[in-house]
Amino acid sequence: MSAWVLPDHIADVLPSEARRIEELRRGLLDTARSYGYELVMPPLLEHLESLLTGTGEALDLQTFKLVDQLSGRSVGVRADTTQQVARIDAHLLNRNGVTRLCYCGPVLHALPDRPHATREPLQFGAEIYGHAGIEADVESVLLALECLRVAEVKDPSVDLADVRIVRSLLAGVPAGLQTLARVHGALAVKDASELKELTRSFPESSRNGLLTLLQLYGDVKVLDEAEKALGHIAGVKPVLDDLRTTAERISPARVTFDLAHVRGYAYYSGARFAIYVPGASDALVRGGRYDEVGAVFGRNRPAAGFSLDVKELVGAVTPKPLKAAIRAPWGVHGDVALAISALRQQGETVVCVLPGHESEVDEFHCDRELVQVAERWVVRAI
Amino acid sequence: MSAWVLPDHIADVLPSEARRIEELRRGLLDTARSYGYELVMPPLLEHLESLLTGTGEALDLQTFKLVDQLSGRSVGVRADTTQQVARIDAHLLNRNGVTRLCYCGPVLHALPDRPHATREPLQFGAEIYGHAGIEADVESVLLALECLRVAEVKDPSVDLADVRIVRSLLAGVPAGLQTLARVHGALAVKDASELKELTRSFPESSRNGLLTLLQLYGDVKVLDEAEKALGHIAGVKPVLDDLRTTAERISPARVTFDLAHVRGYAYYSGARFAIYVPGASDALVRGGRYDEVGAVFGRNRPAAGFSLDVKELVGAVTPKPLKAAIRAPWGVHGDVALAISALRQQGETVVCVLPGHESEVDEFHCDRELVQVAERWVVRAI
Repeated sequence: MSAWVLPDHIADVLPSEARRIEELRRGLLDTARSYGYELVMPPLLEHLESLLTGTGEALDLQTFKLVDQLSGRSVGVRADTTQQVARIDAHLLNRNGVTRLCYCGPVLHALPDRPHATREPLQFGAEIYGHAGIEADVESVLLALECLRVAEVKDPSVDLADVRIVRSLLAGVPAGLQTLARVHGALAVKDASELKELTRSFPESSRNGLLTLLQLYGDVKVLDEAEKALGHIAGVKPVLDDLRTTAERISPARVTFDLAHVRGYAYYSGARFAIYVPGASDALVRGGRYDEVGAVFGRNRPAAGFSLDVKELVGAVTPKPLKAAIRAPWGVHGDVALAISALRQQGETVVCVLPGHESEVDEFHCDRELVQVAERWVVRAI
Repeated sequence: MSAWVLPDHIADVLPSEARRIEELRRGLLDTARSYGYELVMPPLLEHLESLLTGTGEALDLQTFKLVDQLSGRSVGVRADTTQQVARIDAHLLNRNGVTRLCYCGPVLHALPDRPHATREPLQFGAEIYGHAGIEADVESVLLALECLRVAEVKDPSVDLADVRIVRSLLAGVPAGLQTLARVHGALAVKDASELKELTRSFPESSRNGLLTLLQLYGDVKVLDEAEKALGHIAGVKPVLDDLRTTAERISPARVTFDLAHVRGYAYYSGARFAIYVPGASDALVRGGRYDEVGAVFGRNRPAAGFSLDVKELVGAVTPKPLKAAIRAPWGVHGDVALAISALRQQGETVVCVLPGHESEVDEFHCDRELVQVAERWVVRAI
């Protein structure tokens, strides 16, 4: 095997893309900061029980596991940062009021999410803890949209859902965990015949409600239809009102609804949102409310937030032209060193040509050069 | 076990420190960029043979190993980025001319470097490939010093060494690899009695030379002494001249020499430097020339560079006061939303107080508030 072959779904990020990722990263963190979200950096490595408790089987399968030789205990490389940030909120900061936190760092997936997905996403996310009201959900969506605006993503579309609708329809239904998991699976892929089969023994109103859900996707009219069809079921009406309020508050963003959307239902506890952009097959941003996330760390605080993969985001934005550099002779002393230093202080990239390499083609695009004219160093176009 | 206990030598980075690390990270990358170093992002995970070939036993012991379930092959989480960047230069970019690359990302150590070291340093580094001349060594030291200046590190001191001196003294000495390893160990800790014992059967000039080396540390006078004592040994004089030239070119930086310094001798091929700051027990920056680093990837190009741990750097700089934020009422519509948005665009942090949380103490330091006066929204001091 050649030493330069990388594992499948693992790749180097080369200069032109790395620079765009770095620019996006800064834009995202600065935007979160301008909303009052404080940066935290949880570790790559944690004990498995911290990383996985309460998060569901999907994350378990996705987590690289190893043994810590210092302790002999099982540790994992994080496959998601959300749980870690909840731990920080619950245990380390331990504040009573509202806490807003953001993060940006790599995660590793033992298995790729999708056929062409990377196993090393660069996850950026923002979370708000301590507020149960709809304002936290709204702020999450607005911040996510602002992040995409700063990244110059064109035509984002917000898809809203809420896991409490399905939960209300399933309340008191006599079905085992396995059946419920299959019901969620059928809803997720909108498989009506499977859903009919699975719900055969369910109470009439649950069964009809679940089958109706499969049709409830599209624009805001969906909420009217849902109210007619499901409004009588306990707990559904307030959720539909919340969805309507959220859609109003995030206007003028384009909003759609998908009331059967249950992906990650084990994790989320209320409103869910996903942001799509034209041309991308999967959602660019996923978020919502997961009030139970901190429970395992001893503090069951309300929580809402979102995350995205910066490496995926970079594919959804048009590259900006990079600022070209200045070519300069090698010089570490005297006037030329001063001239180079002054240009760098002004934010210019100055590439010194090392002795013997004068005739090489610039790999760094240089459109100007530093030359000596009448004993002064001046920059001129190449 | 509590779910919030982290593995030993692993820690969260909380907001105040995370923000400083992020600022340093940007300053370092921008500085490298201004010198024409292009950013690359190698993966966290690679096949073990790519990560470890030719790097010596120390890195092997330090690397977390696991099995990739996609391929069944052994992979490792990088414990150092240098080898990866050499792979990118050798294989992916495959340029003929000078290539300058930089990087900044986490690495994981299975064992801590030192009693209080983190096992998750944030490694920043810059490498220059394709130039065998001393100019590349000099540029490395100058860029490292400029990085520390931008980070506002006070009173750095550069320590210079060169592995070729010891190599010249050991040339043709009839000793096994184990003995040579112990000789390097004795030199590293300046253990004269152990060195005397080990070199008993060495030729007289080698033995005396090695023992003399133990005294050859200090300011530039060391080079004169070395020339007198070792100048007759083949290969030593040109190295001493190089060290003198480097010291001159990086003036006015404070320079010391330690000619017995051999840490990492398996890895480096020529000049070595370390930068120390008052108050830190270990070097903040380590670098030098490692011309053989790309050989395993099929291209044995000249290479020089350095790296540092941003988490260690943050401990060596005085914290700058953070810019305070503006407190604002919750508002997503109308005038107040416009006022908040305008302030954020200007780079301000505006923390919206969620309904019901008006009396909470700000965790984010706010020194101003957005209030409505005579139907206009204005910022005033708190």
